[in-house]
Amino acid sequence: MNRGLFIVFEGGEGAGKTTQVAHLARTIASVGRTVVTTREPGGTTIGQYLRSLLLVHRMPPKAEALMYLADRAAHVAEVVEPSLALGSVVISDRFTDSTCIYQGLGRGLDPDRLREMSGWATGGLVPDLVVVLDVDPRIGLARVQDSRGRRDRIEAEDLDFHDRVRAGFLDRARNCERLTSYQADDEGGPNPYATRYVVVDAAQDPGLVAAEVFSAVQRHLLLLAPTPVT
Amino acid sequence: MNRGLFIVFEGGEGAGKTTQVAHLARTIASVGRTVVTTREPGGTTIGQYLRSLLLVHRMPPKAEALMYLADRAAHVAEVVEPSLALGSVVISDRFTDSTCIYQGLGRGLDPDRLREMSGWATGGLVPDLVVVLDVDPRIGLARVQDSRGRRDRIEAEDLDFHDRVRAGFLDRARNCERLTSYQADDEGGPNPYATRYVVVDAAQDPGLVAAEVFSAVQRHLLLLAPTPVT
Repeated sequence: MNRGLFIVFEGGEGAGKTTQVAHLARTIASVGRTVVTTREPGGTTIGQYLRSLLLVHRMPPKAEALMYLADRAAHVAEVVEPSLALGSVVISDRFTDSTCIYQGLGRGLDPDRLREMSGWATGGLVPDLVVVLDVDPRIGLARVQDSRGRRDRIEAEDLDFHDRVRAGFLDRARNCERLTSYQADDEGGPNPYATRYVVVDAAQDPGLVAAEVFSAVQRHLLLLAPTPVT
Repeated sequence: MNRGLFIVFEGGEGAGKTTQVAHLARTIASVGRTVVTTREPGGTTIGQYLRSLLLVHRMPPKAEALMYLADRAAHVAEVVEPSLALGSVVISDRFTDSTCIYQGLGRGLDPDRLREMSGWATGGLVPDLVVVLDVDPRIGLARVQDSRGRRDRIEAEDLDFHDRVRAGFLDRARNCERLTSYQADDEGGPNPYATRYVVVDAAQDPGLVAAEVFSAVQRHLLLLAPTPVT
């Protein structure tokens, strides 16, 4: 059986990740592929507990980062890798870049060190495609406020924090080719584990965002053809 | 103000760590030093939540290790370092060696990698003295069973696991001088952060164990003289 595909959505608060994950999942399922949607933190039982702690409690930056990594280790071992092994398309709301950017840029921890530890936590797993949903935090946070009427601990950080987060995701997408991932080629050659990125303007109407996302998925991952039912 | 002293108790289940931590704390306090007793996991608010998850839930090994490290990062930042800065003697029930041994030897994770990540979590903090309470797991586990009538998830592991844990602590104590800690001297010289170890036979009567422990503390840390009250 062919190994599945691992697609990750990244981006700031209110970028529409939840909506777009669900929409892409329906679209891919409609062409006959098995799709698993998941999220970080909180994709496993232990992750649900960690998520509830992370969204409510204030804690030292390194403790926070390590809890996100613990959530990821459980998520990869219990959900992502088993699903990929079964040939499914796994779509995750957030992955390694969120830790490097929120805990790195946002909390002043070394992003390279965080990426390296995340590589240990995931056994070197990198996504086949990362979709960065890009939106001005002024728009994103207003959306969150409108839809839920309140902000959680992360969303309540000041605007400067969210501006840095946005710049971090864009920077990561632009510079990915120049970065060395955890399992870089020892010979210095092209990295077979390099992740591809696409940035989509998420200030647009959700239908337009979804169309751009699916077009990127088709272009990058050649998902046009349905897998024959066996 | 002089920096305090950081003393750690390590050892397997039923070695009597709780009793000996409390006893040493009373003894040191009686000579006029401020003493803070604490433990891992669970020395902070977030650590209490992590402890309850760790003792109850089964989870992938890397997730478990990262949760112990998250607990430690919070513990060092919120309890250990602030207390040491105030000149207190901090006595902790478990620290880095427990992670390297339980999650390393016990779960098959790389102990050096765990020690390095623990070094990041603690900002390079190593104890001034580690007291290893050594007891045959057959005796230790029987004590736990007698005193509490049940075993938690860690204690319920098979005897072979506990034998490996015991050997791990003894090995660490014996080989410590040959190991390089996280903040090793760049020049390859003697490591100023090297931790001193003492192994105490914990199968003895608790009073004898306490006497040996205090004697080791005096010998290693020159705690004989009370700090003058200012």
